[in-house]
Amino acid sequence: MKQQMEIICIGNELLIGKTLNTSAQWLAKRATTFGIMTKRITAVGDDVDEIASVVHEALKRKTKFIITTGGLGPTFDDKTLEGIAKALNRKSEVNEKALKMVREKYETYFREGKMKRVELTPPRVKMATLPERAEPLPNPLGTAPGVIIEMEATFLISLPGVPPEMEAIYEEFVAPLLKKEAGELTFFETSIYADGIMESALAPLIDKTMHDNPHIYIKSHPKGEERKPHIEIHFSTTAKNSETAKNHLGKAIIQLSELVQKDGGKIKLQKKK
Amino acid sequence: MKQQMEIICIGNELLIGKTLNTSAQWLAKRATTFGIMTKRITAVGDDVDEIASVVHEALKRKTKFIITTGGLGPTFDDKTLEGIAKALNRKSEVNEKALKMVREKYETYFREGKMKRVELTPPRVKMATLPERAEPLPNPLGTAPGVIIEMEATFLISLPGVPPEMEAIYEEFVAPLLKKEAGELTFFETSIYADGIMESALAPLIDKTMHDNPHIYIKSHPKGEERKPHIEIHFSTTAKNSETAKNHLGKAIIQLSELVQKDGGKIKLQKKK
Repeated sequence: MKQQMEIICIGNELLIGKTLNTSAQWLAKRATTFGIMTKRITAVGDDVDEIASVVHEALKRKTKFIITTGGLGPTFDDKTLEGIAKALNRKSEVNEKALKMVREKYETYFREGKMKRVELTPPRVKMATLPERAEPLPNPLGTAPGVIIEMEATFLISLPGVPPEMEAIYEEFVAPLLKKEAGELTFFETSIYADGIMESALAPLIDKTMHDNPHIYIKSHPKGEERKPHIEIHFSTTAKNSETAKNHLGKAIIQLSELVQKDGGKIKLQKKK
Repeated sequence: MKQQMEIICIGNELLIGKTLNTSAQWLAKRATTFGIMTKRITAVGDDVDEIASVVHEALKRKTKFIITTGGLGPTFDDKTLEGIAKALNRKSEVNEKALKMVREKYETYFREGKMKRVELTPPRVKMATLPERAEPLPNPLGTAPGVIIEMEATFLISLPGVPPEMEAIYEEFVAPLLKKEAGELTFFETSIYADGIMESALAPLIDKTMHDNPHIYIKSHPKGEERKPHIEIHFSTTAKNSETAKNHLGKAIIQLSELVQKDGGKIKLQKKK
């Protein structure tokens, strides 16, 4: 049984279309390689009630991993931790470990001459104000720590919105946890390309191939127009080792390729230039 | 009061990180220019229950516009309309108008010599199988029609996942509807850039400026590191006309720029190269 994940991206900039949500894709891709299934990706605005509502819903679904991005910084509209505290019905408190991390960052900036004096102003203390029983995760590139809250059914992990900071904390603390919890499954995928067959004619051939290859998921992605079809056919599977995966994928690819060619289509292993 | 929208993007390729969700950004940006507020963007997989659940939740929130993308095609995993029918507790039926659209497409492909005969196979009829009381929207570029379902509180609109098809149906049928329903509000935005001030020091200045300019939303986006800060400050507002918007934006920009400069920061109107 695959572990399940939900990704919750927080920030008005996503909802007004100012920012393309590359973080969700980045996280989903990495979780997938560990054999973890991302069930849902949600973007909501900088609003405590919206954040609380979407976190609460993901918790109700007993999702094993919930990763949030964004809203950990010092400004008024960084509301992720307040929203999470509300969803969990926990108080927020200044976390001493987090405050130490934040203070040490500012002491470094001070030593580098970037600040005139180290002052832990309310916006700076805010970055160390976490829900009760949360653990801060050191941020190697920025000031705001990440946060992890371990519950009975769920790891709830909050990462910053700035992509390099999000990625750094992910690589250092989240990836090892996912790998450990996910067990031995790994994700494998490959694509072939079909020309000269319409997606509507390909559909029953995919059906048959998936029926005969229960471990394989096949999805067609039309790249041309229906009248001049060029279709990516994406095969994926999870398996305990690459040999099993390659055997399963190879068998399905051969079967579908033969079916397509019998119908007058052409199979290519590379995308059309 | 602004109208609210939710965007629901359907497809396993989004959840495994294979595809970057550019469609959500494209739609959110366009809705925003009409003064419509996107409240939530959700991506779910090709699963009838997941689709039904996320559509049902959006309907419960009385969202004025719900736009789905993806899952309208001929293959087994195109399940959007089945999911919507389930969410609405409506039967699915072959829609005669939709079937005519689909048939005419294949007749065109036949006349162009792309097909040997026009056959309305089950995968092709599937694209014309809509929830009861739905209206098909012609697809100028592809075969699968878009779909609109008008309810008491909500317009539920389904667009294809292939971006050019999604965009074509949006421009022709959805944009005019949004514009008409949204009323007279329009969205305006602009950014300035601050150097030499940390985001944590900027935070209280933004607070004060937003407090004094209740029509303006201001959000800081750090582009450098906290120790070498380069921060985009994004101002946005909705207003009935551009003169009002420019007055509101200008007043807020001047106030915040003065506060930043008093704190030793530098304001630039262009992004640092």
